[in-house]
Amino acid sequence: MTTATKTILRPMADRVVVRPLKREEKTAGGLYLPENAKEKPQEAEVIAVGPGRYEEGKRLPMDVTVGQKIVYSKYSGTEIKLDGEEVLILRESDILAIVE
Amino acid sequence: MTTATKTILRPMADRVVVRPLKREEKTAGGLYLPENAKEKPQEAEVIAVGPGRYEEGKRLPMDVTVGQKIVYSKYSGTEIKLDGEEVLILRESDILAIVE
Amino acid sequence: MTTATKTILRPMADRVVVRPLKREEKTAGGLYLPENAKEKPQEAEVIAVGPGRYEEGKRLPMDVTVGQKIVYSKYSGTEIKLDGEEVLILRESDILAIVE
Amino acid sequence: MTTATKTILRPMADRVVVRPLKREEKTAGGLYLPENAKEKPQEAEVIAVGPGRYEEGKRLPMDVTVGQKIVYSKYSGTEIKLDGEEVLILRESDILAIVE
Amino acid sequence: MTTATKTILRPMADRVVVRPLKREEKTAGGLYLPENAKEKPQEAEVIAVGPGRYEEGKRLPMDVTVGQKIVYSKYSGTEIKLDGEEVLILRESDILAIVE
Amino acid sequence: MTTATKTILRPMADRVVVRPLKREEKTAGGLYLPENAKEKPQEAEVIAVGPGRYEEGKRLPMDVTVGQKIVYSKYSGTEIKLDGEEVLILRESDILAIVE
Amino acid sequence: MTTATKTILRPMADRVVVRPLKREEKTAGGLYLPENAKEKPQEAEVIAVGPGRYEEGKRLPMDVTVGQKIVYSKYSGTEIKLDGEEVLILRESDILAIVE
Repeated sequence: MTTATKTILRPMADRVVVRPLKREEKTAGGLYLPENAKEKPQEAEVIAVGPGRYEEGKRLPMDVTVGQKIVYSKYSGTEIKLDGEEVLILRESDILAIVE
Repeated sequence: MTTATKTILRPMADRVVVRPLKREEKTAGGLYLPENAKEKPQEAEVIAVGPGRYEEGKRLPMDVTVGQKIVYSKYSGTEIKLDGEEVLILRESDILAIVE
Repeated sequence: MTTATKTILRPMADRVVVRPLKREEKTAGGLYLPENAKEKPQEAEVIAVGPGRYEEGKRLPMDVTVGQKIVYSKYSGTEIKLDGEEVLILRESDILAIVE
Repeated sequence: MTTATKTILRPMADRVVVRPLKREEKTAGGLYLPENAKEKPQEAEVIAVGPGRYEEGKRLPMDVTVGQKIVYSKYSGTEIKLDGEEVLILRESDILAIVE
Repeated sequence: MTTATKTILRPMADRVVVRPLKREEKTAGGLYLPENAKEKPQEAEVIAVGPGRYEEGKRLPMDVTVGQKIVYSKYSGTEIKLDGEEVLILRESDILAIVE
Repeated sequence: MTTATKTILRPMADRVVVRPLKREEKTAGGLYLPENAKEKPQEAEVIAVGPGRYEEGKRLPMDVTVGQKIVYSKYSGTEIKLDGEEVLILRESDILAIVE
Repeated sequence: MTTATKTILRPMADRVVVRPLKREEKTAGGLYLPENAKEKPQEAEVIAVGPGRYEEGKRLPMDVTVGQKIVYSKYSGTEIKLDGEEVLILRESDILAIVE
């Protein structure tokens, strides 16, 4: 399923592509996302950012950039497998916070 | 059902006509759209693009062009058979990402 | 019910009057609208076009003109019999594409 | 219930007062409104027109005038008896088309 | 429950206070509001008018004034007893027409 | 639960804090709020007013001030006990009228 | 689960991160949030504030700052554990009032 050529997903409008973090990659520090929380927040890394959506005829700039770690609600977005890895296409508004 | 004359569909407003990709046409690389995913994403080629919808009295430019491969949610759009081939009329906002 | 005088329907705002095409009139070419499709698209000819709806206090121009063939979703609009012929009053936004 | 003095209804905003046409008054020509149609369109005469609704702080002009015959959806509006005659208060957006 | 001092209700935004008319006060003329009508229109007198609601940062002027008789839908508004009399607080948009 | 220090609640945006009136405080005059009314209107005193909500990027001024008596719908707002007294946080739009 | 390095959550748009107050931290004074209230208001301290959401293409300033105590509705937001402490990501519009 994986090849030498890298597939690139360019998200539309205010969408982003994120890679959910594996247990060992998660923020070493204090962020803990309880499994039984109502909205099941998850941690992920941003791997592609859309150009922004239009409002009043102008594009709104995006507030996240590639490489940032973010928290999002588990029930958001569309799952896709990209070069053997599970990724998710979210709207920026589904991102709750950036983790630093 | 097919003739020598090609039928042309000009999508209205922010709609696009796309041709869902057959298994053998799909991105050679890493894009894999799991059948059991919640939103059933699909891969397709854009074959016609509308002029854009109006916002605040001005047309918003479209972000896709003919020939691009895209990912969309399976439950979007209206199915039509065009010159013997199944196509789909989507709104641009149903397109999740462009595949390169 | 029919007379020598032709009745004229002038659709309001962004509405259009269309005449669903009979089997023998349909695009000779490749357009085939599957009966079992989810949204039951239909082919029709535009016979009257409204002046456009207001947005931000200005009328938006209409994107269809009399005589064009269009595809629309079967469950849209209001059926009326006009001079013995079945017609449909749709909103322009119910038109999916123009057929050429 | 009827008197010599005529009662005047001045519809608010984008409302109109219409008088549903009796069988013998209906457009002599070809307009036929099927009883079993989904939205039960009806023919009526406009007898009063409101000043228009506000959008962006300005009144939008109305597209119908007193005396015009119109088609509207049967399930719209509020029924009132005015000087012995049944009338209906509709919003302009419930009017599908003007009949000529 | 009634006193010599008159209580004043100043309605907020686009609200009005109206006094439903008693049978003997109703328009002498032709207005008849059928009990079995779908939306149960009622006749009332306007006794207080709000300053208007904001749209785009400006107040929209109100289209009714104190003393006017109006028709409104029976299922609108909030009932209050004011100085022994039943009154109703409506939004202006619940008023269908002014009666003259 | 009560102390010498007074707790201050500063309501956000277009919210207000009100103190529902006790039977003996109610408007001496004619205002009577029937228990069995559909929307259960209540009388209260405004004890804090928010700065107003944003519309089109500007704050809208509030139409009530501290000390005014108001009528609101019983099913609005959030109950809090403040310095031993029951208060309610409402949106200004839940206030039906000012009582004078 | 806790480390020497402090994890920082930067909330997106008009979101804030708050730390629900423990019983012993609560406002000494009169604020009492009844458990059986309809909307279950809670007291919390603001620990991070987003940059504000866009309206008409401009960011709206936020009305809360880090360190303030606030009242919010219990059923709002997403629970996260941060450096061993339970925090909540809310939208500013879920905050009812600032407590002083």
